[in-house]
Amino acid sequence: MASIPIRRATLVDVAAAAGVSRSTASRVLSGEGAVSAETEARVRAAAAEVGYLLNSAARTLRTSRTMLTGLVLNNLVNATFHVVAEIVQQRLALAGYRMILCVTGGQAAEEADYLQTLAEQGVDGIIVAGSGANIDQLNTIHANGTAIVNLIRAGKGAPGDRVLASDRDGAVLATQELLDLGHRRIGYIGGPAQTNSGRERFHGYRSTLRTAGAFADDLVLRGPFSPDFGAEAIKAILRAPEPPSAVYIANHEASFGALPTLRDLKVRLPDDLSLIAHDEPSWFQYWDPAVSIVDSGATELAELAASRLIAAMRPGGTDDKPREFRVGARLVTRGSSAPVTPRA
Amino acid sequence: MASIPIRRATLVDVAAAAGVSRSTASRVLSGEGAVSAETEARVRAAAAEVGYLLNSAARTLRTSRTMLTGLVLNNLVNATFHVVAEIVQQRLALAGYRMILCVTGGQAAEEADYLQTLAEQGVDGIIVAGSGANIDQLNTIHANGTAIVNLIRAGKGAPGDRVLASDRDGAVLATQELLDLGHRRIGYIGGPAQTNSGRERFHGYRSTLRTAGAFADDLVLRGPFSPDFGAEAIKAILRAPEPPSAVYIANHEASFGALPTLRDLKVRLPDDLSLIAHDEPSWFQYWDPAVSIVDSGATELAELAASRLIAAMRPGGTDDKPREFRVGARLVTRGSSAPVTPRA
Repeated sequence: MASIPIRRATLVDVAAAAGVSRSTASRVLSGEGAVSAETEARVRAAAAEVGYLLNSAARTLRTSRTMLTGLVLNNLVNATFHVVAEIVQQRLALAGYRMILCVTGGQAAEEADYLQTLAEQGVDGIIVAGSGANIDQLNTIHANGTAIVNLIRAGKGAPGDRVLASDRDGAVLATQELLDLGHRRIGYIGGPAQTNSGRERFHGYRSTLRTAGAFADDLVLRGPFSPDFGAEAIKAILRAPEPPSAVYIANHEASFGALPTLRDLKVRLPDDLSLIAHDEPSWFQYWDPAVSIVDSGATELAELAASRLIAAMRPGGTDDKPREFRVGARLVTRGSSAPVTPRA
Repeated sequence: MASIPIRRATLVDVAAAAGVSRSTASRVLSGEGAVSAETEARVRAAAAEVGYLLNSAARTLRTSRTMLTGLVLNNLVNATFHVVAEIVQQRLALAGYRMILCVTGGQAAEEADYLQTLAEQGVDGIIVAGSGANIDQLNTIHANGTAIVNLIRAGKGAPGDRVLASDRDGAVLATQELLDLGHRRIGYIGGPAQTNSGRERFHGYRSTLRTAGAFADDLVLRGPFSPDFGAEAIKAILRAPEPPSAVYIANHEASFGALPTLRDLKVRLPDDLSLIAHDEPSWFQYWDPAVSIVDSGATELAELAASRLIAAMRPGGTDDKPREFRVGARLVTRGSSAPVTPRA
């Protein structure tokens, strides 16, 4: 085992090792005051040698920057969110920022607590994939000099850039694909109307079908983000007097319930029913048949949010002219969707 | 939209709002120096009213505690890790700590960079579910007063408590279950020998079969943590001169490749082959049939690691007598494993 230093190295140790005065060592390590390049190199080498750790708290008081950031999101179980957390953290790290993770459970009150904590910590910036509540608080934090980026969701009046998915366009893509495959009776299983994604995806679905003269109220089911709702909804939709030949499941968690239920009911995809889901956990590719999806681009959303935050946190960087960014949706067709007329 | 304060509230604002002197307000908010309970309450109410944020950097210099912690792990895609990240973060938050997330991609060099960053940040404690490398560095950080907890993996000589899964016991449980179901030819698909889990699970499997006089070299395949390896391994094992009637897939990622391959090969579970996997992503319960697993207890591992770290970070808390904790494995039997003799 390595020998273990028994106390934290001090500036005096650095100065002694470099053969300079304490104040010279301090000037180098604080970045304040001019010294020769040679002296600087000698002091930095000595600091590394004695294991001197720059005291972040002291540095913060000097520079007013903490190099800390925060990421606020609902959970890490949803595939989109854990992809976002991993990628945002790694992008911020490349730019020298540490990221404090805050998982709110989707509760607006918890979110408010976390935002307060991040503000007290003096973070340089926050990415919020949040509840859309706590807008006043976000504005206060922003006015105090903290950069904000809203990711996936954004409440009305929230400060900072908004990096959003293209929920409506994604729903149009899925619905149009099913129309193009010749389907006319196309069911919809979606999220609650009071959520952004629930609303936007439904509008995309409905307007596409209306344009085609194929919208039917009785094939629409909207409910909570849960597998149980999906299991019930798919059963209900198949009991319709004139059942659909295709379904677009816009509610991610509902698809987890709907797919096993269809298998248990011996409804064959795509022969008996074509199906397109929205966003994917890793296992949709392993399903039999593999599940067609609308891909919202979790990776691209995360990368863009991180780069917008980094830009806003830069000295002289500004987010006082906030802008909205949309990451386009992409259709990934696999075995679960096919033309309405059975193939020979 | 809310009215936005255009500058950060200062101690002077708090003092004015509370009708006390600046020094009285400072005494209350710094927690140093005695004031009456009534004055304290008035100052705290005033601070909340004017939106005064305690300056964390200044507070740190006074108390030598940052209330910051770090969590270092390989990725967030593996189900165990994203459960760990969510639960550790929430437990630490309840105790007043913020958690800096560091995703290393399993690279020892990246891990070293993150550990250095956390040390420079002056975190009070670190949970490392790490590479097992960087032991000297961990010892230096620990000797400088930072609490350390090793989670799931722990390198030899690492400082601090070790909260580990029971990989060997879990493998014994799976193998014994298959023996009890009457299987004698039991295959093994596992991780690399140079990993903790790869080694310990293999030893549990082998010793159980040896005791039963049923160990056979030709049914053992060990390889990388990847679905592709799992797909190849299950095909290879089924081509054995005397194929197995059961298989224990100890390599989590390999099971993602093996399960779809078995379906494509029309090998029916459990009629043609009994199967037990190790740890689960959400979808094993939706598979047909649902997959039997060894459950390592990701939630319990995370809760225990967080509570050990919190104890070690407490004033007067100490981790100079580090201890090892094991979270027991649990067998969850589902449809994929059954007696060797076909049921009537």
